[in-house]
Parts: sequence; structure tokens; C-alpha cells
Amino acid sequence: MRAVVIAIGDELLAGKTVNNNAAYLSGRLATLGIPVCRQLVVGDVAADIVAAVDEARALAPLAVTTGGLGPTADDVTLAAVAGHLGRELVLHPPTLKDVEERFRRRGVPMPPLNVAQARVPAGARVLRNALGTAPGIVIEEEGWAVCLLPGVPAEMAYLFEHGVTPFLEEKGYVGERSWEWMFHVTGLPESAVAERVGPLEIPAGVQLAYLPHAGVVNLRLWGAAPGREEFRARAAPLAAKMRAALGVYLYGEDGVTLEEVIGGALARRRETVAVGESCTGGLLGGTLTRVPGSSAWFRGGVIAYANDAKVALLDVAAATLADHGAVSEEVAREMAAGARTRFDATYGLAVTGVAGPEGGTAAKPVGTVCFGLAGAAGAAGERVVFNGDRDHVRRRAVLHAMDMLRRRLGGAAPR
Amino acid sequence: MRAVVIAIGDELLAGKTVNNNAAYLSGRLATLGIPVCRQLVVGDVAADIVAAVDEARALAPLAVTTGGLGPTADDVTLAAVAGHLGRELVLHPPTLKDVEERFRRRGVPMPPLNVAQARVPAGARVLRNALGTAPGIVIEEEGWAVCLLPGVPAEMAYLFEHGVTPFLEEKGYVGERSWEWMFHVTGLPESAVAERVGPLEIPAGVQLAYLPHAGVVNLRLWGAAPGREEFRARAAPLAAKMRAALGVYLYGEDGVTLEEVIGGALARRRETVAVGESCTGGLLGGTLTRVPGSSAWFRGGVIAYANDAKVALLDVAAATLADHGAVSEEVAREMAAGARTRFDATYGLAVTGVAGPEGGTAAKPVGTVCFGLAGAAGAAGERVVFNGDRDHVRRRAVLHAMDMLRRRLGGAAPR
Repeated sequence: MRAVVIAIGDELLAGKTVNNNAAYLSGRLATLGIPVCRQLVVGDVAADIVAAVDEARALAPLAVTTGGLGPTADDVTLAAVAGHLGRELVLHPPTLKDVEERFRRRGVPMPPLNVAQARVPAGARVLRNALGTAPGIVIEEEGWAVCLLPGVPAEMAYLFEHGVTPFLEEKGYVGERSWEWMFHVTGLPESAVAERVGPLEIPAGVQLAYLPHAGVVNLRLWGAAPGREEFRARAAPLAAKMRAALGVYLYGEDGVTLEEVIGGALARRRETVAVGESCTGGLLGGTLTRVPGSSAWFRGGVIAYANDAKVALLDVAAATLADHGAVSEEVAREMAAGARTRFDATYGLAVTGVAGPEGGTAAKPVGTVCFGLAGAAGAAGERVVFNGDRDHVRRRAVLHAMDMLRRRLGGAAPR
Repeated sequence: MRAVVIAIGDELLAGKTVNNNAAYLSGRLATLGIPVCRQLVVGDVAADIVAAVDEARALAPLAVTTGGLGPTADDVTLAAVAGHLGRELVLHPPTLKDVEERFRRRGVPMPPLNVAQARVPAGARVLRNALGTAPGIVIEEEGWAVCLLPGVPAEMAYLFEHGVTPFLEEKGYVGERSWEWMFHVTGLPESAVAERVGPLEIPAGVQLAYLPHAGVVNLRLWGAAPGREEFRARAAPLAAKMRAALGVYLYGEDGVTLEEVIGGALARRRETVAVGESCTGGLLGGTLTRVPGSSAWFRGGVIAYANDAKVALLDVAAATLADHGAVSEEVAREMAAGARTRFDATYGLAVTGVAGPEGGTAAKPVGTVCFGLAGAAGAAGERVVFNGDRDHVRRRAVLHAMDMLRRRLGGAAPR
């Protein structure tokens, strides 16, 4: 079993609306064991809708459309598809009653336009819409079915859950659900992750995808199985080899964030952190405190954008600034030590760099960022040159600083 | 002229990734006067990619693809399309040099996998990618062209602007462009904006859209015109009425951000700001410093998450904390005054609140945030209760604090 999703609407083609509906329908169908082999988007044009339906029919035994079922002149989906399939539109009295009732409750007379929404293709299954005036429609033909849903996201989702899903179950179209297992890696480029993971044997019934995203590579294992435990058992040998191959670069699994890993480790150890930030301007603290309850382990920080603030509030020695410059491992280490002391924290974590676009030199080009991590035994420093624009450099710097602390705390989250 | 957009990726078909790329490309193409007549989504499967390319070729003289250009085994777009069009992949030395240079700058040896990314279809135009290792590719055939872009959104956007757009202009594919004029409003809900703007007369050839987004309402005027000046002249009477109707709530036009408006005003006045943050954890400083050159007017800040840090580093009186609690206008005003003094800034701006999900009380429910703004003449306070989850409350708090400062500085950006 597989399916095609067709989203219909001029605003999608104009790029004014993001196609969240296709993602929703595809995700739900995959979960029901019905993979989507293609998504199509066409405008509110009868000929284009009909062409898409024909194309879908050639590709898969199920098509789900969303959009173009409203009462106005630009809603042409129902008439186009019904006409194409040689089905007359006939009045559906329960739907008419529903629509009339909706308007009566609101105390508004029903506009004549809405009567059209009670006309459905002859022989179709009608899916009752508790959230709006357009019902869902299922048309079954020899070896093929098309489900027509409205484009309003809440109505589409309601009708998929309460109308389409029961239909698919009743017809025996529902297959084995798809399950997944996520692995989150940082500190390695995608190609280096692939060199470690690529040679590993992938068990039958398991698929692997690389999902790189701004300094993080997410690895997704997925496959159809009768249940989560069956899938995990099947994928476990690969998971074990991936953990070994990725080592400390693997920071967590199943959607955990780096800040959650850090917060969890600090909370377990009853330790705390404070930050000193220059080029990131507060983003490091802002990211760590995304975690609910972070006040248990995050003490605070100083945004020392100006050099005199580095001296006055983070106790950086004026001589260190003069000798090495604000962007140096030496200053980063002193900022970290200062944050640790000022906030009475177990660790101090500091970032100072040239985020750009101005301020680069030959020795310290734009993208140069220095990091400091201070603990009871002293402070370590690192220096990295990031590519990309100001925003990108700053986000990568936050990630790198957090990862420095994570590794100090002992690597990945416990499983 | 018209175009087809093809997005490639198993994650899109699985519903794991929303197809923002198709919306971006469709919107940009529409702006260039090239309407998109269909969007297609296929998986990382050579046969499906090739089928989509053939379909696109039958529908329109231009196709733009996104996705599947990375270095790993599941990136098959380039080889599939090149093979299908009978183009050999040949080494492109400038790209190889670029990729090597990227790794050299980071001090990381280049994995052999990345060499494959320097191989391009014979005779293709290569679009240099300043943000990543995969170049964009344009293949021109008789009466048809296909542009292959990576799937990483920032890289795709960069290559569309710097590679595809110049190509389309050079070939004369660009039609009567659509022009727009954006107006940015904060401090009013969408319905209140509509009450002020709705009654205004809209000139012929101008369309108006409301785009509400987390505390900001963007108003877009747009229409096709021979040039920007023609469109602006047509829309100017409406723009003038909108400015009058929106008053101080209009913070800027044409994509300016609130932090840019603030930075511009401070720089012109030769004034500076420092921040004191509690529940926002650094996000306020992190947002202000998104502006390049912000060191001219942003002095720094203290993230005083713990109460003792509010006392020790922002000079909040212990008695004020005891009498009013950490989330109070009184404490916010003292934090603002402390930040101003400690950083020797013209203004101090402070935020303290209950971001949730824990920590709410009957008197101070989750979402309660207090603000302080200190200047030479003393400190003002405000208190707001925001709806939404932790992330939302924190982002709205940053916006509100910035807007408080903007209004103090004199409202909208000068035009």
C-alpha cells in the first residue's frame, strides 16, 4: 500500500502559505504503514487538479487531497474531481442539515452559497465535519480510492482522524506502523559522521537517514514493525555499533537537546554553571535557559560586550586584554574563571569572538571564536574559526560552547 | 514564463520536514514574474527524481530542484539528473579548491567523500556556494533549464539569490516583477490593526495582506509593476494613510527589525544601553546584538537568574526582593538602574518574569513579566501577562522590552 498527497491552492503555489498540510497527511499516513511516494501541489484550476488526480492514480492505489472544498468561487476541487470521474453531484440531506444547524446556532441566516457544500458525488462516502461546513469525501473506484479533505488545517486533521483513518482500517489498507530511533551528533561534519556510520551493517527492515542541521547531524533509523519494541530490537545491533563508532560525539537520542543533556548532567551532579559572553551577546545563557527548571543549575552570566565590562564584571586582567586582545583563549579562560567566581558556580563557560561582518584581521579573521571553561582545577581554552554570516557564527559558537561543557560533564546522556 | 519546483527528500515524504523550501522558491520566483504552476515532492530515489524532472520539463521551461546534493549515499539528485540528461560528471577545480579551503580554515582534514561534491555535470553552470560544500548547478537544454540547489535552507536561499536570479535575469526569463512594501507593527493585536487599516482606500493595482506573527503584525502591500518606483508611487497615498493610522505602533518598514531601529536611534543619539535579564536568560542581549556593529551602542548586561546575582551584580536591594518578590516592577526598575550604572550606559533595560511551566502563583501566574527602563531621570516599570508556553513568553518578553526602549527613543525609524 502506498499513497499520493495532493495539496490544492493558489496560495501554496505563490509561496504565501507553507504546505504544513502535506507534512501532516504524509506523517499520519506513514504512521499507519502507508508510505507517501509523492506529494503534488497544484493551483485552484480544474484542469490541473484533474491532471494531478490522474497522475496520482497511476502511481498509487490511494490519493488524499487537501484544499478547494470551500463555498467560494475559487473552490473547484469537488466539482472538478466528480466531473472527471463521471459522478453527478447530488444533495446529501444529513450534510445540509448539519450546515443549516451550524448557522442556526450562530444565529446567522445560511448564505445560499453554503447549500452547494451539501452536494456530494453520487456513490461517495461522506465524512462528517464537526469543525466546519465542508464534509470530507471518499470516492472508491476499481482498485483505487481518493479522499477529498478541506484545506483548513484543523478541519483536515479532524477529518483525517475521524473519517479517513476508519475508512482505511475498514478496508484493510492500514499496514504496519513506522517507528523511529533518533541519534544526535555534534562536533563532526556530516561527511565524517558518514565515514564512521556508513560502513556499519544495516539490519533488514531498518533504514538510515542523515539529517544535518547547523552544527548538528541527526541520524534517523526507521522502519515498519508491529510495535516500538519490535523495531528497537531489530535496530539494536546497529544502534550499539553507532554508539561505539560515534563515541563522545553522540550527545543524545530520541529528540533530547544539548541544553537538556547539560541540565540533566548538572542536576544529577548537583553542580551549576555561569556564563561570560561577548560576541554571542547573551544567546548562550538564552539557550541554556530554554530548559524548564534551569534555575536549579544555571546561576547567571555577564554579557561583557565592552572590554571594560570584561575587566569590571568578569575580573579579566587589563594586561591580558592588552597582551592578547579580547578575542584570545587567554581572555576566554579569564572570563570563564570570572563568571565562575562571581556567580559562585561549579563551572564558568565563556565565549569571545569576531562574529562579523566587521572586526576581522589577518590573524583573527571573521568567524574566529575563543572559548573558556573554568572549573575548580583551572580553566581550559579552545579556539575555532567558523564559516558563515554573523548569525551563523554566533549560533555555532553557542553550540560549541555548550558541547565543551557537555564533554566535561561526561559525554552523552545516560540511557 | 513559468516554472516547476521539485523538492527532493525522504524526510519530506515521511512528513518529518515541512516543505518551507518550496514556499521560499515559489515566492521568490513569483516576485521575479515567473509563476510556479506545480510543486512536486519525491524521495531520494533516482527513478522518482528523474520522473519528476521529466514531468516538470513537460509542464514548464524552467525547473528548480532543492535537496539531495550532500556528500552521503542518500544524496542522489546530481548523479540521477546528470545521468538522465546524458551528462558525465567531471571535476570542477574551483569548487574542489573552495571545499578544501573550507576544511583548511577549520583545521580539519577534508574527508574523501567531499571530493564527490566537486564533480559537476559536463557543460553545466556552477553556482558558487559561500555557505556550504555543495555548489548549485544549472543545466540548460534546448528550450529548457533545470537549476539544482541543495536542501539546507540557508544554502538554497543563498544560491537562489546569488546564482539562480542572475542566471534568470541574464537569460531574460524575468517577467514584470511583483513589488512589495512592508509595514511592521507591534503593540497592537491583528484585529486592532485591521480596525485602523481596514477602512483605508486601496489604490487600483495594490493588494494588502495582514501577516500576524508572535507579537508583530506585518502588513504587506504588493502588486506587479514595471519597477519599484512605479509601484511605490501607486501605493504612496495608502502608505501615508497607514502611517497616520498606525502612529507609534508602526516601528518600521521594508524588513527593518526592532533591534535595528533601536540601534539606529541609539547610534544617532550617541547613546548606549545595558540589560539586566532574569527569565529571558540572555535572549534580550542576544537579540539586540544580532545587529552588526552593535558594540557601538550595546554595552553589555547581567543575566541575573539567581536572586543573589540580582543583588551582587545589579545592586537590587535585598529589601526590595523580600518586599515585592523577584517578579515585580520594583525589582525590574532596580535591575534596570543597576545595569545602567554597572555598565555606564545611557539606558538600563530589565526583564524579570515567570516563563513557566512551573513557578506561577495566583497573584503572579505563569506568563507574568515585569519590565524596567532606567535613564538619567529615573526608572519606569511595566507589568504584562503573556499567554503561551515558556518559549513564547520569553520571546514576547524580549519583544516588549525592546519596544519599551524604542518608544522612549522616539518611535519609528526616520524615513
